[in-house]
Amino acid sequence: MTENEITLALIQSLKDGRAQDFQHILDELQPYDVAVQYRHLPEKHRERFLLHLTVRQLTELMQELHRNDQVRLLERMSVDQSTKVLDLMDNDDLVSLLSDLEPTMIEELLSRMNREESSYIQKTMNYPPETAGRIMNNRYVWIPRHYTIREAIDKIRDFAEIAEYLNYLYVVDDDKKLLGVVSYKDLILGELDEQIDDVMYTRVVKVDALTDQEEAAAIIGRYDFITLPVVDTENRLLGIITVDDVIDVVLQEANEDIEKLSASGKSIDFQTPPFVAAYRRLPWLILLLFIGLISGGIISRFEDTLQTVVALAFFMPMIAGMTGNTGTHSLAVVVRGLVGQQPDKKGTFKLILRELWVGIIIGVTCAVLILLIAYIWQGSLVLGMVVGSSLLLTLIIGTLAGTIIPLILYRLKIDPAVASGPLITTINDIFSLLIYFGLASLFISRLM
Amino acid sequence: MTENEITLALIQSLKDGRAQDFQHILDELQPYDVAVQYRHLPEKHRERFLLHLTVRQLTELMQELHRNDQVRLLERMSVDQSTKVLDLMDNDDLVSLLSDLEPTMIEELLSRMNREESSYIQKTMNYPPETAGRIMNNRYVWIPRHYTIREAIDKIRDFAEIAEYLNYLYVVDDDKKLLGVVSYKDLILGELDEQIDDVMYTRVVKVDALTDQEEAAAIIGRYDFITLPVVDTENRLLGIITVDDVIDVVLQEANEDIEKLSASGKSIDFQTPPFVAAYRRLPWLILLLFIGLISGGIISRFEDTLQTVVALAFFMPMIAGMTGNTGTHSLAVVVRGLVGQQPDKKGTFKLILRELWVGIIIGVTCAVLILLIAYIWQGSLVLGMVVGSSLLLTLIIGTLAGTIIPLILYRLKIDPAVASGPLITTINDIFSLLIYFGLASLFISRLM
Repeated sequence: MTENEITLALIQSLKDGRAQDFQHILDELQPYDVAVQYRHLPEKHRERFLLHLTVRQLTELMQELHRNDQVRLLERMSVDQSTKVLDLMDNDDLVSLLSDLEPTMIEELLSRMNREESSYIQKTMNYPPETAGRIMNNRYVWIPRHYTIREAIDKIRDFAEIAEYLNYLYVVDDDKKLLGVVSYKDLILGELDEQIDDVMYTRVVKVDALTDQEEAAAIIGRYDFITLPVVDTENRLLGIITVDDVIDVVLQEANEDIEKLSASGKSIDFQTPPFVAAYRRLPWLILLLFIGLISGGIISRFEDTLQTVVALAFFMPMIAGMTGNTGTHSLAVVVRGLVGQQPDKKGTFKLILRELWVGIIIGVTCAVLILLIAYIWQGSLVLGMVVGSSLLLTLIIGTLAGTIIPLILYRLKIDPAVASGPLITTINDIFSLLIYFGLASLFISRLM
Repeated sequence: MTENEITLALIQSLKDGRAQDFQHILDELQPYDVAVQYRHLPEKHRERFLLHLTVRQLTELMQELHRNDQVRLLERMSVDQSTKVLDLMDNDDLVSLLSDLEPTMIEELLSRMNREESSYIQKTMNYPPETAGRIMNNRYVWIPRHYTIREAIDKIRDFAEIAEYLNYLYVVDDDKKLLGVVSYKDLILGELDEQIDDVMYTRVVKVDALTDQEEAAAIIGRYDFITLPVVDTENRLLGIITVDDVIDVVLQEANEDIEKLSASGKSIDFQTPPFVAAYRRLPWLILLLFIGLISGGIISRFEDTLQTVVALAFFMPMIAGMTGNTGTHSLAVVVRGLVGQQPDKKGTFKLILRELWVGIIIGVTCAVLILLIAYIWQGSLVLGMVVGSSLLLTLIIGTLAGTIIPLILYRLKIDPAVASGPLITTINDIFSLLIYFGLASLFISRLM
């Protein structure tokens, strides 16, 4: 059945009040597909659709919807329903939802929830955004070290409905301190009477709750884990991060890098309303406006030179554009490279040397090319040489600035992406104009 | 123990020839950590280090190394060793490694391998790069539908060592056609005598081997799967894609988008040698050079205007920079937005309308600001109005071009990121200069 056929079948079963058929169709759908159906459903059928869902189905639907639809669904449900749904929701999804609501609303929702769940949620929400603590959940199975494999398997059976993934069991002591980890494979391959103590792996890879979420994601990616335990400073197990959330983190961080590299401010997606989007973009644009005016100020210093040789203006966009591109590109290489690895001193030096070479190679090539073009177009060899040598110098400087500045920021523990986009643009603009007009002024008598 | 302490302990055990102690240390390390140790090890100790590794450890090490180190390790091993290692390697890792070797080398290595493995590898390598077929592996467990849960669990036990993840078992018929899927949870929660037929889920989410890897990654992300089955056109199960590879795909695709958005050509990382990096960047830079010259050509058409009012040149970098930024940013929003969802006609229209509003809001704000600045700086209200209204128009055009062009390319099934970076820059440059100098020429008598 195609998506549309399913929609029609669902509507028909709702109209006829055939609850069993309705459930039959839903049983064969993944939560994501149920959410797709819900979004496609005409408004008039939604109420009855929701009436026919069990609490578990409502929860799954909730977890798959976009933020706006989540809030609307929350308002639609009865107090009793919404409380049950919130109790059942994965903590990390719930924390992410609550973070976007009003404080009074958060308090009200939390007060109605199961005490244990709501206190876990509150604890999680106290961790700063974008940390491991903020994206962890408590859907894991823990066991004491004296359990046998048989007991562990029994516990898994009891918790299978709740646990998000069963790939690892965490072994803790009475204080909930993390002692070890047992993989499901170990249980399957071991003897039923063996003690967990004997099969567990004690050098557990884990993260502190305050670890940056990007670092936590990198660890899961590096070790190919499905889940990663999160502990406090005393090594007490607080929760786990799961691989599905890591995919979201990787996507989010990549998008953030893109936003920062293109100097465009905070996250904007298809759903962002126009005023919010404009408000988020304006600070950066105004910053760029002033950066542009700095360039204008430099040009105004060379007004006489420009007045004498107006043709100089013809090459300005080309020089500025290419220097900007080389700088941004070197920056992108460094920023994205740092996601995967942290170069030591030797590596850093090698990288800078590499970029110097790149700058020289592309600089010489482009300089020769533009010299010829400028000579043919404007008939002045001197102009060609001024443009060509300016381009050579600015490309080398652009490449180096795009490499060195993010590396310095990285050493200073500042996110290289955020600070260096506009910074590099400014530096490159200033240098390229100073070099270009400086050289032109030097040879002004030959240029006339 | 810290990383350095482990390195020292490893070296000491190698020097003293205490093989058991060496294995004891390694036992507590994850494959990734072993690879880190190997890379940190001084060259003189590496030979002995490798001698002490079992074939399985060698394989794990191999899978964690960077390409260059992999090739070097391959050359170091004996023919017998390398054959065993290749047989044991995850197919997807092996395919990725082989893809970078010389054809004769590939043939030689494959000819020595286990027949079954090497034919699977060859089949996989026949799929185009960046498809699901190219990143799948055969480390999954399949069962016939008539099995009981008990038989399924027994089969899992037999294959636990080989299978990458045990979260799902795939149910196939005699032709290897995919009939259903059983999650490990289902097995745990079911009765041992129940038939797989009765518990399996038949609406299996799967991908064709020729599906783009980005699409396959999006499906795993959407459904929170650990593995995703890959089938041929006849629905025969060919392999699975695992979530750890998906993280790599997501990272790779994000980096590709960044490269394309910043118009910087093919992938360059910290390891790329300078000549290769320069060679990959040059085509784009030369393209940008000519784009820059188009702008220069337009300016040259307005030589007289510029000669009369040189101050016009002062605002050129600002207008070009801001129009470029708004265009690129709208482009980035669309390109990254399309990773997660495909808007229908209504959604597309809403998005374009949203960006029109954004363009108007930011355009009016920035225009008023620059009008005031230009008036104060240059003392000419007319100049301020020319600059301001140019900025208003170009910002609106920039935003719309950055939105509409990638959407059109997307409808035409062209990757919006690749074609539209330079395209949008060119269009925006041309429009902004034409508008700016056009307006200036209109009001030239008032500007003098």
